[in-house]
Amino acid sequence: MSQQRNVTNKKLFLKLNNDNLKNEETIHLEGWVRSNRNSGSIGFIEFNDGTYFKNVQLVYSLDTINFEEITHFRTGSAISVDGKVILTPNNKQPFEIHVDSAKLLGDCSEDYPLQKKRHSFEFLRDIAHLRPRANTFNALFRVRNALAFAIHKFFQERGFMYVHTPIITGNDAEGAGQVFHVMSDIKNPTAFFGGKNASLTVSGQLHVEAFALAFRDVYTFGPTFRAENSNTTRHASEFWMIEPEIAFADLDDDMELIESFLKYIIKYVMDNCKDEIAFFDSMIEKGLIDKLNHILNSKFEKLTYTEAIEILKKAVKSGVKFENNNIYWGLDLQSEHERYLTEKHVKGPMFLIDYPKEIKAFYMKQNSDGKTVAACDLLVPQVGEICGGSQREENYDVLKKKMEEIGNVNELEWYLELRKYGGCIHSGFGLGFDRLLMYITGLQNIRDVEPYPRTPGSLKF
Amino acid sequence: MSQQRNVTNKKLFLKLNNDNLKNEETIHLEGWVRSNRNSGSIGFIEFNDGTYFKNVQLVYSLDTINFEEITHFRTGSAISVDGKVILTPNNKQPFEIHVDSAKLLGDCSEDYPLQKKRHSFEFLRDIAHLRPRANTFNALFRVRNALAFAIHKFFQERGFMYVHTPIITGNDAEGAGQVFHVMSDIKNPTAFFGGKNASLTVSGQLHVEAFALAFRDVYTFGPTFRAENSNTTRHASEFWMIEPEIAFADLDDDMELIESFLKYIIKYVMDNCKDEIAFFDSMIEKGLIDKLNHILNSKFEKLTYTEAIEILKKAVKSGVKFENNNIYWGLDLQSEHERYLTEKHVKGPMFLIDYPKEIKAFYMKQNSDGKTVAACDLLVPQVGEICGGSQREENYDVLKKKMEEIGNVNELEWYLELRKYGGCIHSGFGLGFDRLLMYITGLQNIRDVEPYPRTPGSLKF
Repeated sequence: MSQQRNVTNKKLFLKLNNDNLKNEETIHLEGWVRSNRNSGSIGFIEFNDGTYFKNVQLVYSLDTINFEEITHFRTGSAISVDGKVILTPNNKQPFEIHVDSAKLLGDCSEDYPLQKKRHSFEFLRDIAHLRPRANTFNALFRVRNALAFAIHKFFQERGFMYVHTPIITGNDAEGAGQVFHVMSDIKNPTAFFGGKNASLTVSGQLHVEAFALAFRDVYTFGPTFRAENSNTTRHASEFWMIEPEIAFADLDDDMELIESFLKYIIKYVMDNCKDEIAFFDSMIEKGLIDKLNHILNSKFEKLTYTEAIEILKKAVKSGVKFENNNIYWGLDLQSEHERYLTEKHVKGPMFLIDYPKEIKAFYMKQNSDGKTVAACDLLVPQVGEICGGSQREENYDVLKKKMEEIGNVNELEWYLELRKYGGCIHSGFGLGFDRLLMYITGLQNIRDVEPYPRTPGSLKF
Repeated sequence: MSQQRNVTNKKLFLKLNNDNLKNEETIHLEGWVRSNRNSGSIGFIEFNDGTYFKNVQLVYSLDTINFEEITHFRTGSAISVDGKVILTPNNKQPFEIHVDSAKLLGDCSEDYPLQKKRHSFEFLRDIAHLRPRANTFNALFRVRNALAFAIHKFFQERGFMYVHTPIITGNDAEGAGQVFHVMSDIKNPTAFFGGKNASLTVSGQLHVEAFALAFRDVYTFGPTFRAENSNTTRHASEFWMIEPEIAFADLDDDMELIESFLKYIIKYVMDNCKDEIAFFDSMIEKGLIDKLNHILNSKFEKLTYTEAIEILKKAVKSGVKFENNNIYWGLDLQSEHERYLTEKHVKGPMFLIDYPKEIKAFYMKQNSDGKTVAACDLLVPQVGEICGGSQREENYDVLKKKMEEIGNVNELEWYLELRKYGGCIHSGFGLGFDRLLMYITGLQNIRDVEPYPRTPGSLKF
């Protein structure tokens, strides 16, 4: 069997956009029926082969060899088509395919759950194996693909080295959050790894720091895990994280990197998924494109935590109501506080920096005031924190003391050693890929941006 | 603190290669001391900032502001340097840096394990956090990075969609190999996922097939796991796999894809890691470059399993000695047999196709002979099988019958349904990333190509 895999929906649209789609060009296509209707003498199939977001319209008529047979092609069926391109510059769609003949390759059962009517996202989650064919998810997974590639492209163009940090680990990076345990034998949980407890990674940061101290600019981009029993729209048990780490770089360099990174990948998606983003703007979040353009066109502001606390105190005094109105220096800010700062005070994306050391992780660089650490959270309107970074503590003695307090020196001796053997100022950040994708598409539930979401109680696929 | 992050080793070498590195150009560099020696009036530092495989030579002399201090900089220390580029076209290295002054940023303790002498790979595995600084691993992880990006680049250029298939899964794709169990509570292993056993994925194929039937050409590239207690040089408990899946494509299309993919990514690495591959050719595997060029310049041959059995039988008759000389139709070929076929018979890369159905996975397309399946293994000299693919069974009834025999219909009903709702001929393959990296670099142990290898008993980091 010799496949004619060279003509696709995508190629037709690319040719069209380049003004070299030829009228009456003969083509062979293979793909799926999205809908099929006819009036007895002429019929229309919305056709998509998966290579492009937009459908192609197939027109069949009594001139078509097997008109009668084609009228019975059901939604969801796989078919092949031989026909001719007809340019229709005055119609809604700029071209259509006049069908000479069409063939049923794979029938679709009558109980196909994806009929033309609209379905709820909840319903579609239960058919995760079929939902990529639904419009919203067709668009979503295209954006997901483009966003993932944009991340690699950005870092590769800047000479960053991609590092596959391990999934199975003996460390719990931040001591924060519950972890999944991993074992080959439930009766003897530590047997496989020679007496060590194994768990699924919550972050690749500590492992990737070792590579920054060899290659200068590095990143990891892979799955991470949380075993929290959180049933919110923003928590998943499995999600992808981007964690760059840069050597000879302080918090300012880190914020520069975050800002240029975020602008680059958003722009890449807007440039490469125009139809999909237009779809989300029109169907999911009105104003999405404006929101994204606002990010692209803003210079990210900076505010210290200490300044932020004063601003929030003033806001409360002037009558602003938070669920938590008890603002004090040392408070771990909630989303409502973050959103006030970015939406009302700065009115745009902003970094909040220099947090009290007590509410941040052990590896963050202690500032000279002795009270704060060189951390930054990026806050954006509508969401609050979308990304967090910090300069890392490069001083061996300071870090050792902190780790002794936590009690992870033995477990992470290798990590501490990085400060003993040619350590230097270095910084990095972590960005949750799936939450970023929610932000870029306007989708409100993390279950709707992952191919097969894992959440408490949910492991059907 | 304002970092001058714009001059790097890499930029100096790129400028040199483009003939626009200027003599006496003033520069500031930050990086690490690889070695430091002096004769009392002149000193030399082999310097590397991690951005390029080759070192830069720093020359300091009595004209340097802090000559005496610099003589004490130890191997492994982080330093910053202000100096001038001096072109030295007649010397071994084409340029050097004359140091005006240098500063110690991070000292390196005297017990630094990476002194200039050669270390065994076994020793270096025990310091996985430091070994990226050793020459071999510096080269290796650069190649690893380039290879990973080449994979994305190849698929993206061809319009494939990248899909993040899940790591935690309720299915065991092939029923083959032991799996790692995942749980949040050891006392109640199935509690987290609502009564379901969870394990770490052994393959993303089944999950990605659903996406091929929506987007036509897709791929997954992520970590996979085996809980086998195998202590060989080729088995790791955690490794990355590339699994493309293409719709409206048969086994021939699949083999075409494998061949063009493999040639593309090998060529990309050879073009983009010239120095590193030259290093491996000279230090690790003599003839490596010839071996890789042989792949690039070969048309991959095809041989059926049935033909191969006849060839092997003849070989045994003519006196060839295998460890297993009992060759019969139905035998699961060993590496020694595969290597005979590719090294002695074909003398180059080759596909072995149409295997007995009994020795292959349930999802493979049954051929019309009723005895074989449309599978292909790619065999290469020195290794044997490096990659396996197949056309998938698209016939609902045939697949259902096979799954009933195995007993995985309930668990994988969604997978079976893909054949009910617009199924079509489709194919794919799986390629172990880490083993491919071994092949491309000549390194002989999978522990030496992974950042933090996980193998039985080994979870130090």
